[in-house]
Amino acid sequence: MSKLVIVGTVAFDAIETPFGKTDKILGGAATFIGLSASQFNVDSAIVSVVGGDFPQEYLDLLSEKNIDISGIEIIKDGKTFFWSGRYHNDMNSRDTLATELNVLADFNPVVPQDYKDAEIVMLGNLHPIVQSSVLDQMTKKPKLAILDTMNFWMDSALEDLHNVIKRVDVITINDEEARQLTGEYSLVVAARKIHEMGPKYVVIKKGEHGALLFHDDSVFYAPALPLEEVFDPTGAGDTFAGGFAGYLAKTGDVSFENMKNAVIYGSTLASFCVEKFGTERMKNLPKKEVHQRLQQFKDLTQFDIELT
Amino acid sequence: MSKLVIVGTVAFDAIETPFGKTDKILGGAATFIGLSASQFNVDSAIVSVVGGDFPQEYLDLLSEKNIDISGIEIIKDGKTFFWSGRYHNDMNSRDTLATELNVLADFNPVVPQDYKDAEIVMLGNLHPIVQSSVLDQMTKKPKLAILDTMNFWMDSALEDLHNVIKRVDVITINDEEARQLTGEYSLVVAARKIHEMGPKYVVIKKGEHGALLFHDDSVFYAPALPLEEVFDPTGAGDTFAGGFAGYLAKTGDVSFENMKNAVIYGSTLASFCVEKFGTERMKNLPKKEVHQRLQQFKDLTQFDIELT
Repeated sequence: MSKLVIVGTVAFDAIETPFGKTDKILGGAATFIGLSASQFNVDSAIVSVVGGDFPQEYLDLLSEKNIDISGIEIIKDGKTFFWSGRYHNDMNSRDTLATELNVLADFNPVVPQDYKDAEIVMLGNLHPIVQSSVLDQMTKKPKLAILDTMNFWMDSALEDLHNVIKRVDVITINDEEARQLTGEYSLVVAARKIHEMGPKYVVIKKGEHGALLFHDDSVFYAPALPLEEVFDPTGAGDTFAGGFAGYLAKTGDVSFENMKNAVIYGSTLASFCVEKFGTERMKNLPKKEVHQRLQQFKDLTQFDIELT
Repeated sequence: MSKLVIVGTVAFDAIETPFGKTDKILGGAATFIGLSASQFNVDSAIVSVVGGDFPQEYLDLLSEKNIDISGIEIIKDGKTFFWSGRYHNDMNSRDTLATELNVLADFNPVVPQDYKDAEIVMLGNLHPIVQSSVLDQMTKKPKLAILDTMNFWMDSALEDLHNVIKRVDVITINDEEARQLTGEYSLVVAARKIHEMGPKYVVIKKGEHGALLFHDDSVFYAPALPLEEVFDPTGAGDTFAGGFAGYLAKTGDVSFENMKNAVIYGSTLASFCVEKFGTERMKNLPKKEVHQRLQQFKDLTQFDIELT
C-alpha cells in the first residue's frame, strides 16, 4: 500500500438542483477526493485550509475515515471557502451563484512531515502555484503525481498551469477543458497534445458519457453507469479522481493495466456520489454496495466475441 | 445462418463537411445497412426503389456483395431519392440543404418471394406505413424485426410510427429521438417507456458517445472508438444497424448475450464508415481490418478487476 497526499479545497457548498436545494453543507474537492479514496482504507492525508466557522463534526468525519487531517490548517478568525451553484434541468450545466474565497485567498499548503514521502500525490483543483508548492515539499519524487484542474485556471493562470502540468504523471480534465487547453476538438488529438505538455497519462472526463484514459497510443474507456436520475452532480469529478487515486494507492501498482481498473473504480464511486446531495451518499457507503455496482459495470461493458 | 431482409432508401447523397464536399454519390439507409451486413456474408436482400438515373454500377456493387437486389424496383422515368446536407464544424449537427423524394414519394415495397420467410427483418428509416407493409408481407413471423426511425416521423406520422413500433422486437434510435418519443430526459427512463410501447430491446445511439442496449432491467454499453478525426458521419447510424443485424443473421442467435456482440460489431463497422465520404470506406473493407478494430474495442473496454 502507498501513502496518499491529497491537496484541495475543504469547503461549504450550497446547491440548487431541479430536485431541491441545500443550505451550506460539507463540500470541497479534497473532501470528495478523500471520502472516495477512503473506500480503499489507504493511509491518506488532506492538505487544506478552513475557517473558524468550520464544524468540528466535519473534521471528525474525515478522521473517522482514517484520513490524516493534521494538514488542514484552521484559521480561527477566518471564514471557510464557500461555493454556491444552481444546476439547470439537464444537470449538465450550472450557474455559479457565489464564490467566496475567504481563507483560501492566502492558502499556503503545508504537507505534514509524515506524508512528505508519500508515493502518490493527488493535486485537487486549486491555483496551480499552490499545487506546485505541494510537489516542492515532497522529500522524494512521488511514484505518481495526479493533477486535476479546471478552465478557470486556463483563463487566469495559464503559465502557472503549464508549469505544474509538466511536473505531473497524470492529468484529469473534462472534455471541454481538454479542448480549451489544446485548441483541438478531437479528444484523441487533444490527449496527444497534453501528453506533449508532460503527463504520460491523460484522463478525459465526459460526465454522463464516461471517461477516457490515454497513454501513448493506447486508450481505455470507462462508461458512466446509466442512471435513472442524477440528483446532484457536485463532486462527481473529484469522487472519480479519489477513486482513481485511492485504488492506485491501495494496490501500489501504477501500470497502465492497473490504471484501467482505477478508472473503473473512479466511475463506480462517482455513480454513487450523484445520487444524493453533496457528500451524503459517500459518507456511509458500504463496501458491499460498491462491489455490487462494480458487477454492474462488468455487465455493462464486458463481452466475449469470437472472431468469425 | 438466417436470411435478412433490409428495407430502406437507396439514394444519392451530396455531402459537405469541413474537409470537403461531394457531388451526388451513392447513399441511402438500405445501402449502408446492406454494405455493413455484407461483412458477414449473410443471405440478404434489399427492398427499395430507385429511378432510371441510378447507375448500374451501384446496383452491381450491391450484387457483388451478395445482396439480392431483385426487390429494388427501378422506375425508369423517375428520379432517385436525393438528399444533401452540410455538417457543422463539430460534426455533431448538420443542416439539410435538399430533400427530393422523387420515386420514394410513391414507394410500395415488394418483398421478393424468396425472402418472405426471412428470419431477420431490418426496417431502415422510412415512412412507418412503408415499414409496416414489409412486415405484412412476411409469410411467417420473423425471429427478429428491427426498426430504425427518426424524429421526422415523430413530427409527421406519430400514430403510424406507434403502430409499427409495437410490432417490432428491437428499435434503434438516437438519444434525442428517444427523448422526443417519450418526453423523458433520462435515457434509462426513456428506454423503459419504449419497452412499454412494444420492443423488448431498445438500442439508443449516442453518436461519438457510443450506444446503449436495454433489455428488461439489463443494459449493455458499446463505446464509439475514439477517432482522431470524423471525416463524414453520413450513414454511421445505418452502418451500425447493418452490423447489428448482419451479425445476428450470421449467428442466428438473438439472445441478449449475443446482441451485446452485435452492438460491438455495429460500433466497430460504424467507426470505419465515418473515415471517408459516403460508402467509400465500406465498399472494400477487408475482414482483417475489421478484426484488428474489434481487438481495439476489446482493448478499449475490457478490464479485469479483483474485488478488494
